[in-house]
Amino acid sequence: MVKPLPLEAKLAAFEEALSELVRSEVLFVRLIHQDLVTAGGKRIRPRLVFLASGAVGGAPFELELALAVELLHSATLLHDDLIDEAELRRGKEAAYRRYGNAVSVLSGDFLLSRLLHVVAKTGSLELVEAFAETARVLAEGEVLQFQVAALEDYSLENYERIITAKTAALMALATEGPALLKGLKGAWREALRRFGLLYGQAFQMRDDYLDLMGSPEALGKPVGGDVREGKATLLTLLLMERFPEVRAILKRRGGEAGDLERLRALARESGVAEEVEARIRERALLAAEALDPLPDSPYKEALKDLALAEGKRLA
Amino acid sequence: MVKPLPLEAKLAAFEEALSELVRSEVLFVRLIHQDLVTAGGKRIRPRLVFLASGAVGGAPFELELALAVELLHSATLLHDDLIDEAELRRGKEAAYRRYGNAVSVLSGDFLLSRLLHVVAKTGSLELVEAFAETARVLAEGEVLQFQVAALEDYSLENYERIITAKTAALMALATEGPALLKGLKGAWREALRRFGLLYGQAFQMRDDYLDLMGSPEALGKPVGGDVREGKATLLTLLLMERFPEVRAILKRRGGEAGDLERLRALARESGVAEEVEARIRERALLAAEALDPLPDSPYKEALKDLALAEGKRLA
Repeated sequence: MVKPLPLEAKLAAFEEALSELVRSEVLFVRLIHQDLVTAGGKRIRPRLVFLASGAVGGAPFELELALAVELLHSATLLHDDLIDEAELRRGKEAAYRRYGNAVSVLSGDFLLSRLLHVVAKTGSLELVEAFAETARVLAEGEVLQFQVAALEDYSLENYERIITAKTAALMALATEGPALLKGLKGAWREALRRFGLLYGQAFQMRDDYLDLMGSPEALGKPVGGDVREGKATLLTLLLMERFPEVRAILKRRGGEAGDLERLRALARESGVAEEVEARIRERALLAAEALDPLPDSPYKEALKDLALAEGKRLA
Repeated sequence: MVKPLPLEAKLAAFEEALSELVRSEVLFVRLIHQDLVTAGGKRIRPRLVFLASGAVGGAPFELELALAVELLHSATLLHDDLIDEAELRRGKEAAYRRYGNAVSVLSGDFLLSRLLHVVAKTGSLELVEAFAETARVLAEGEVLQFQVAALEDYSLENYERIITAKTAALMALATEGPALLKGLKGAWREALRRFGLLYGQAFQMRDDYLDLMGSPEALGKPVGGDVREGKATLLTLLLMERFPEVRAILKRRGGEAGDLERLRALARESGVAEEVEARIRERALLAAEALDPLPDSPYKEALKDLALAEGKRLA
């Protein structure tokens, strides 16, 4: 009999430790964190940490790593709420609408300070440096996305840079981190890093695809957010190559009646939607294959399944 | 002959290292940092680091500490530009007005990532933890200030908590840091920490005083910013005790014609302005006296002079 994965138990302990870690004496800090931290989310990044740890036979400080990775993600969401001017996030009002931009940004900073605390607890200066580097790449990627939208500097190359920096880099730290903490340096560590990068890219490609082609009911938010912010995605970039009007729609931020429906129709009828789905499946497959150097285990299988699920994720 | 302080040389090396540290491949990140980082400021915090280091006979990694302290300060300014809705900062347009809130917040995050990098370079996990703690206190202090304004929860106790958290804590890290890096644990380290706290409090008290009572020409910005944000200061708190109309003015954010002039006149005529100035001098004197346990040196004298200057600073 295969021993069952203790993943759910680890995730439960994670939730408890997270609540403890972000406790604050300041009321408004607590209110913000009730929304974004304790109200959950899919906890994909902690899941990646625990699975990657399992795949190398268990790593020290995996809980601290999972907390740090999730805190960086949550802080970015808080700093992103302003940026995206997200109408709804996870089906709730964006935090800043209730308490003001100020409190969102500063509560994000509070989370970053707790990240630093929990990373220090691992005693690994190499991990501190890895978080420094990932946070740098992440911040630069977010600014680059804004810059590309502002300058209409649309290209597939910039799209790959953006999804790698703003999403894949942190996923890669989540999966490489356990190997780092275990002191591994060879093929296993490289395999986990590669998996995280490719999985992260597939994940963001899927998110971007759903942002326009998904169902508002499944997503819990209106579609077309990226278009409204002038952000090009793989889908709109490929459409742009064939239909000049798509650039015009992006330029006017989808501001005319029927713009979004027009994009969706073009994507479906031209076959570009299918092509994007195929590219996402391809990236997910590359992610799964990146794990080949690792010994077989239920953890490795679970990571593969996570990646392959990106080919059909609906929310 | 007393050996001259190499302070100016250290500050020049600091500027160079800072420019190098915040270099980015992303154009919009560079634009923001030209404004806020490379365009200077008084560099009070790096100055504190170098002087405190000198006062204990020189500490390892003083440059890295100075960089980290200034980066935390600069990131806070970038995240604060939104909060304060500062019309002008250092006499220039606030960064976010030119490139949007998004870019300010994320460029601040970029600075925080560089802070983490430079702290890791010191190899001191104790310093990482000290920055984690200071960043936590700072973020909570900023949120508390917002909360107090939103709930009109005005009190001298909250005022002391806010100035200690948002300003004095980082000053204390700047002065205690060299002792920490040198591995000191006793009276010298405690003296430097106490100095930083008291100096930081005096500094913020003076800033708040000038925000209403200063001259717009000297400050390079309009007076009354705190009143417009509903932020109580020592001055308005003491006025409130005597004149109920002051609470009403704060409640309406100084929105009626003559409100600011009324507050300034009340402060002058009631003697409250003088009382606040006396309290600032007292706090500065306490800061200077906190240095007593340290051996005499030009560095100690320079720190004392810095503190005592708060009694008369005009900008």
